Order: sequence, then structure tokens, then C-alpha cells
Amino acid sequence: MAASTFPLKDDLDIVIPTIRNLDFLEMWRPFFQPYHLIIVQDGDPSRNIKVPDGFHYELYNRNDINKILGPKASCISFKDSACRCFGYMVSKKKYIFTIDDDCFVAKDPTGKDIDALRQHINNLLNPSTPYFFNTLYDPFSDGADFVRGYPFSLREGVPTAVSHGLWLNIPDYDAPTQLVKPRERNTRYVDAVMTLPKGILFPMCGMNLAFDRSLIGPAMYFGLMGDGQPIGRYDDMWAGWCVKVICDHLGLGIKTGLPYIWHSKASNPFVNLKKEYKGIFWQEEIIPFFQDAILPKECITVQACYKELSKQVKDKLGKIDPYFVKLADAMVTWIDAWDELNPPAKVAGSK
Amino acid sequence: MAASTFPLKDDLDIVIPTIRNLDFLEMWRPFFQPYHLIIVQDGDPSRNIKVPDGFHYELYNRNDINKILGPKASCISFKDSACRCFGYMVSKKKYIFTIDDDCFVAKDPTGKDIDALRQHINNLLNPSTPYFFNTLYDPFSDGADFVRGYPFSLREGVPTAVSHGLWLNIPDYDAPTQLVKPRERNTRYVDAVMTLPKGILFPMCGMNLAFDRSLIGPAMYFGLMGDGQPIGRYDDMWAGWCVKVICDHLGLGIKTGLPYIWHSKASNPFVNLKKEYKGIFWQEEIIPFFQDAILPKECITVQACYKELSKQVKDKLGKIDPYFVKLADAMVTWIDAWDELNPPAKVAGSK
Repeated sequence: MAASTFPLKDDLDIVIPTIRNLDFLEMWRPFFQPYHLIIVQDGDPSRNIKVPDGFHYELYNRNDINKILGPKASCISFKDSACRCFGYMVSKKKYIFTIDDDCFVAKDPTGKDIDALRQHINNLLNPSTPYFFNTLYDPFSDGADFVRGYPFSLREGVPTAVSHGLWLNIPDYDAPTQLVKPRERNTRYVDAVMTLPKGILFPMCGMNLAFDRSLIGPAMYFGLMGDGQPIGRYDDMWAGWCVKVICDHLGLGIKTGLPYIWHSKASNPFVNLKKEYKGIFWQEEIIPFFQDAILPKECITVQACYKELSKQVKDKLGKIDPYFVKLADAMVTWIDAWDELNPPAKVAGSK
Repeated sequence: MAASTFPLKDDLDIVIPTIRNLDFLEMWRPFFQPYHLIIVQDGDPSRNIKVPDGFHYELYNRNDINKILGPKASCISFKDSACRCFGYMVSKKKYIFTIDDDCFVAKDPTGKDIDALRQHINNLLNPSTPYFFNTLYDPFSDGADFVRGYPFSLREGVPTAVSHGLWLNIPDYDAPTQLVKPRERNTRYVDAVMTLPKGILFPMCGMNLAFDRSLIGPAMYFGLMGDGQPIGRYDDMWAGWCVKVICDHLGLGIKTGLPYIWHSKASNPFVNLKKEYKGIFWQEEIIPFFQDAILPKECITVQACYKELSKQVKDKLGKIDPYFVKLADAMVTWIDAWDELNPPAKVAGSK
């Protein structure tokens, strides 16, 4: 990528659900300091988050969310990192990078610190190719291209809406796998970025994720998790399923692979099992639902797609549990709140 | 993979279209010598192919093919490496590995020689997961698993029919890309194997390819190329499109990624352009055809699927050029010849 496209500091916000670990920002300082941070505190609003000097940031706690959104604040999860999506909504930037506070700077196989943000931006600035698989992975990477047999008419690609980064060290496993493989670490550095093909779903992890807010922002809703909800740890998964269906419908691309971050510590598998328990059953019905979901041609905006999807969620998943009726309503509230904070005229004029 | 699954020497044949390079077999000796080779000579039958001592092989030239297949030999390409598929037909083994004679042993990033065959067998012995994308790639690799959010009901996977390996050094580019990027070399070692998702096509390259003959053999037809045909260099592509559609229909998997071989020399881009010329246009219609191809439920064998596909080729691609009518007929001849050499009873009894 040409150096002239960097820095994009006026075009990108970094959204962090909360910061428990003081080392986190120090470690990322060389990479994050040029950017603006949006910190969304997921727990007790009276707790004070200390941000080291030199960072440009805004911080929202539950009281702020309630004040800004009023009754619509009901769509934002409480005591759960899913609250981070409030940060996507209040941002006015074109790009968002979101990262968890237990994710540190990883090293590439040569021992060099990985600038995750730079790779995400690279992923987002280059097209995606969801309609045909390229066996040498991202054809827009240095030293790569489309291979023999790749149709020329598909080489222009489509705009990239999402860049899904991965994790070295602690892999993003569910509770059962954590329980069964407590010592497993991800040491495999796979030097690849690839487009997720059209029509296939993937488990989108929110630990190390960037997206183009102007293209897909309103679909990046992390659902109702945590306090008062029957489920947790499906916030990013929910967003990923919705986002993929909408990207496929609107002709947008999603990339996965590089960059890696260093995921420092595994969350407690027993706590996780409690949070995931219902999800383990529900996902067996949710995934076929999303695999079969069809959006009508008239849905040409992300908002329209998302509201349509909320209707289908209510109709088809509402039978599983009343939770999905509540979630479907929250999806509509989320879009209403998004549009209130991002009125169309302003969105069109923003970068 | 357990060591007990190796060697599979009685279960695998290595099919080589021809051997122009005497170093080729010497270089592969430590890996290939335990296996049986089937060499299908693609050019002048009077030319003598010298196989070094110590290899167990059978060699077929055009005269042999004509003698064995009689009038059905018309389905086997002449003066083109597409003739290799004759080797798939005469083999009686469960697995086939096919490789070009300009492909040498590659080294992994630690400098160790890569045992391509071992990795292919590993890929084929472990299931594929075509219905949902796993972001840590092949969940059956060492140190990897299914990530959070991967539905448990899909973790058993499906049988793997094809293992598509890649190439370091000279990438498998089409003539236009070769002309534009004459110096590009593939130096990126991507340490990953992945299942190609259901419903997406890929450009299958025949340079470094293994498959389960008992699962997908009759679909591995490399078409009509070379002497007397209007097109070349689409033999493996054609097979790949057919194979992918049939695997998707029958619930079989295809993996791509590791192992790498070292592709030593680029073929002449001017010669390639002549061979590919019509294909560049045709593939723009062929690919949508395969993307939309639906096989009826009644087709439950590879043979039935392939004959049905040949009908659709004749109906829908015959309009592009009379070549496709001829190709559709050759597809039927191929299946008839396959069944003649592999009568159902014997196939069921073979390993």
C-alpha cells in the first residue's frame, strides 16, 4: 500500500470496551497514540479508568450512555464487553478498530512487532474477492496476484467492509474446548489474508476487528449480553452473522487472517460455560437461520437490511426463546439510535 | 496423524504426465520410491522415457492408450499433459497423487525438505468442513481446533475428496499475468490448510494435486486439450469446476493450502497465451454456468453426477462453441471408459 494513504488518523477511531490492564495502552502507545480512543466502560460507572498521559480519548460509562440515548439505551448491553458497540455509534469516523484489553502486540516470525492497525487498514483499503476463491489468498498482497483460471471480470473485486484479525497464544475457543484443551496455544503464524467467500458464515471474533463504519457500521450491533440476559460471549458472533448476511446482500467483502495480536490470557472456562450454555444449543438453530436468510432487493441500505433481519429474527428465532423477541426489538432500537446520532445528511458529509 | 496410517504405499499411485527432466525423480527419490508410479507420456510414443533404477512404475504412451481404450481413447488428450487422467483411470488404488515434472521438493521456513505426499495424505485422511468457515483454518491440524462460535453439529465434518497443494517460486499465473509480471516469484509460505467452502468455485491446479479416487475419481477428467483442440491449459481448471460442483452435491470436501512444492520454471507466456486465448473469453461464461449448476437428487454416484453435468454442458455451453458439444460427448465417453476399466464389483472390492 502506498505510504501516502497513511496516517489515516483523522479517519479512524479505536474502540476499547474497557481497560483493566494498565500495561495495555503503554504497550500499544507507539501504534495507538496518533489515533483517537473511544473507551466504553462495561461495568460500574463509579469505577475510574486511568488513561496514561499522551492519549487522545473520550470515555463513556453507563450514565453517559443513558444520558445520550435516553430510553434507547436499553439496546446497549450492561456489564458486558458487548457495550463496545456504543462506541461505534458515537464515533464520527470512517473506520473503527476495536480490540480487547488483554490483547497485546504480537511479533511476526522475524521477531518484529506487528503493527496490527496498519495491516487492518491495508485490508480495508484493498478490495475483497468474495465470488471466486483465489488459491494464493489475497491477490492484493505484495508478491501475490490472481492465479490462472481466475475470471478476469471478477478481478476488480468489491469494497472491503470488515477486516477480521487473529490471535497468537490463547486461541478464541469456546468453553467446552477450553475445558478439554486447557494448554493449547496458537503458535502458528499463518501469513495470509483472505476474503470470506459469499454465502458462507464465519465466527467473527471482536477481540481484534476493524471495519468501515460508513459501509457496514449500523450492522455492527453486539446484541444483548451480560447483565439481565440469558447469554454471553455471543455478542461478536451475533454481529458477525448479521454482518456477513448483509455484506453478501449488498456486495461488500469481509477479510480474515492477518494481523495477529498476542492474546495474553484465557478467560475462565467455567464462567464461560455459564455464559455460553444456552448459546451452544441455540446456535444450532441460529446458524441455519442465517444461512437461509434472504433479504429483499428493496433493502439497499445497511439500516433497511438490518431492520428486515430483525423482523426475520422475531418471526423465526422467537420460537426458540422469548430472548430473541427482545433481541429483535433491540435491533430496531439500535438502528433508531444509530440514525439519531448519525443523521443521514451528516453521514453523507462525513469522511 | 498417527504414524500407523503410514505408509500407505499399497493405497496410492503417483501419476506423472511425462518426465522430461531426469533430475525430477532423483530429487523425489526419498519420498516417491516406496510408491508405484504411473507415467503417461504426453507426446511422441516413440520417444523413450528413462526412469532411474529403483522405481516401481508402469508407463503408457499413446499406442498403449489406444490399445486399452479402443475408440474410447478419443476422450484422452494427445500432446498435452491433460493425458495424465488416463493414469487415474488405470490405477486401482484408493489415492492418487499427481505432479508435474518441473515441480521439485520445496523447503519449509526452517529449511527442511517438505514431504508433500505425507501432507497430502494427512489432508485426505482428515475430514473437511465446507459448511462453516473456521478462522484458525484446518481444525484438524496440530495445535488447532474449531473456534468459539463454530456449531458443534458441524464438527464431525465430511470426507475429504481432494487435497490441492500450492507452489513456491513460480506461481501458477495465466499468460496475461505472466507477461505483466515476468519477475514475480511466490516466496510466501502460508502455513495453512483450509476447506473450500460449499458453493464457491476455485481454480484447481494439477501441478501438485492429490485425491481420493474411490470418492471422486470419475470426475477427475482433464478434458480435451492440446493436439486438435482449440484450447489448452484449462485441463485442470475444467476438472476443478466439475469436481467442486459434484463434491458440493455429494457432501464431500476439498482442501487447499499445504503442501508446497518448488515450481522450478515458468512456461513460455507467449505459447501459453495462444493456448489460453479462447479460454480467457470462455471462462467468463463457463464459471457462471458452474456456479448455477444444480444436480438432481437422484444423482447419487460420481458417474451419475458427471453424466448429468455433461448434458448440462452440451445444453448450456454448446452455444458458445461447438467445442463444448465435443467435450460433453467426451465426458460421457470418459465415464464409459472408466466404468469399463473399473467395473462396479471390482471397485467395491478394491482398497
